[in-house]
Amino acid sequence: MSLLDASLIADVPPFRGINRENLVELLSKAKSERYEIGRTIFCQGEEAHSFFLLLDGHVRVIKVTPEGDQVIARYISNGELFGIAHALGLERYPANAVTAVDCVMLSWPGKLWGTIIEKYPTFATNTYQTVGSRLQETQNKLVEMATKRVEQRVANAILKLANQTGRKTDEGILIDFPISRQNISEMTGTTLHTVSRILSAWENKGIVKSGRKKITVTEDHQLALLAAGELYN
Amino acid sequence: MSLLDASLIADVPPFRGINRENLVELLSKAKSERYEIGRTIFCQGEEAHSFFLLLDGHVRVIKVTPEGDQVIARYISNGELFGIAHALGLERYPANAVTAVDCVMLSWPGKLWGTIIEKYPTFATNTYQTVGSRLQETQNKLVEMATKRVEQRVANAILKLANQTGRKTDEGILIDFPISRQNISEMTGTTLHTVSRILSAWENKGIVKSGRKKITVTEDHQLALLAAGELYN
Repeated sequence: MSLLDASLIADVPPFRGINRENLVELLSKAKSERYEIGRTIFCQGEEAHSFFLLLDGHVRVIKVTPEGDQVIARYISNGELFGIAHALGLERYPANAVTAVDCVMLSWPGKLWGTIIEKYPTFATNTYQTVGSRLQETQNKLVEMATKRVEQRVANAILKLANQTGRKTDEGILIDFPISRQNISEMTGTTLHTVSRILSAWENKGIVKSGRKKITVTEDHQLALLAAGELYN
Repeated sequence: MSLLDASLIADVPPFRGINRENLVELLSKAKSERYEIGRTIFCQGEEAHSFFLLLDGHVRVIKVTPEGDQVIARYISNGELFGIAHALGLERYPANAVTAVDCVMLSWPGKLWGTIIEKYPTFATNTYQTVGSRLQETQNKLVEMATKRVEQRVANAILKLANQTGRKTDEGILIDFPISRQNISEMTGTTLHTVSRILSAWENKGIVKSGRKKITVTEDHQLALLAAGELYN
């Protein structure tokens, strides 16, 4: 990475507050990589050979059960770290990571983790803050799973994606990467059949528009009411 | 805390690898506290005034939704840190903490967090490892909620408690603190009615014995098969 790139990257959350010298040094240890849509970056159970910073794109983090069921744990967006198994005290990746669109990322060798944490305490603190907020986010999702009806969970999942990645179009807010009904079911712990039934009902009411791997929120206020449980199907 | 106490505490996971001098210093900043069963240690949303190390007892960490639903996020056991909002980058507690039995704990003022982390890097690393494993644990619970039937979740919750806190008795493995059917429902995201139906069925088969706030696992192998989904009700 060149000095020019260092200026561009200084404002990415994991690098905030790091002095320029350390930043350049950290970036000199990174490799820039391109992955096409649908490619597996790493697999659950594989030795954690690298950790990553997503510069452009979206990455799905997927947990696979021993029975082969898939659950989408989260979507990684621009400027987020992922594959940070070492920060979790793990030697192996706890999930699969698959590109949801074409992606550009930086990667560092996993074996550098210890040195990096010691040498760049600000980077370490930023990373642990990331782990902390992911714990909160996962905890909240667990509470949602335990207490919300499936309609609310689906509404919430779509709203979050629209906020995280939405692009304004004439029709409404388009989720800006290919997303299938199967993906939504894997995010909300329900069946494909249920997701289809819910989306069709919302489509009839003009709340969303969905096509093959495409969802547009046409009435975000209505969707927010559904998520809050204040509007019933 | 005296020097004697320092030797007793050196083997508690958060303090592992810390040299004796630092350990004594860290402990000199702590206050020892006793809480009776059923007492609230801190509340969700309250300013994170202290963080805690549980020396003896069990603590329930409970998330409360805006609608007033309760979800038991985890049980804290001996030797575990809790209330570490600062390590999660939070200024307020993200959950309630309530004693499940009479408890003894150490507490440190929350405002010392920054200093402690800087001065005792081993303690910091140990704490972040704790946060990392809690993220894993929560993630796995989320996958379980999304993919397992309710019988499996209840079997798993009871098995975990029996492993974490179980005491051998003539009848089997007794969960060594008061636990109600309501608690189990708040751990597994189901209703009290469903938990009662499941436990009654298992009781008829001699797999568990349960009384008011008391559960004994009488056939742990059978319960493990139920958790794995290899035995059906």
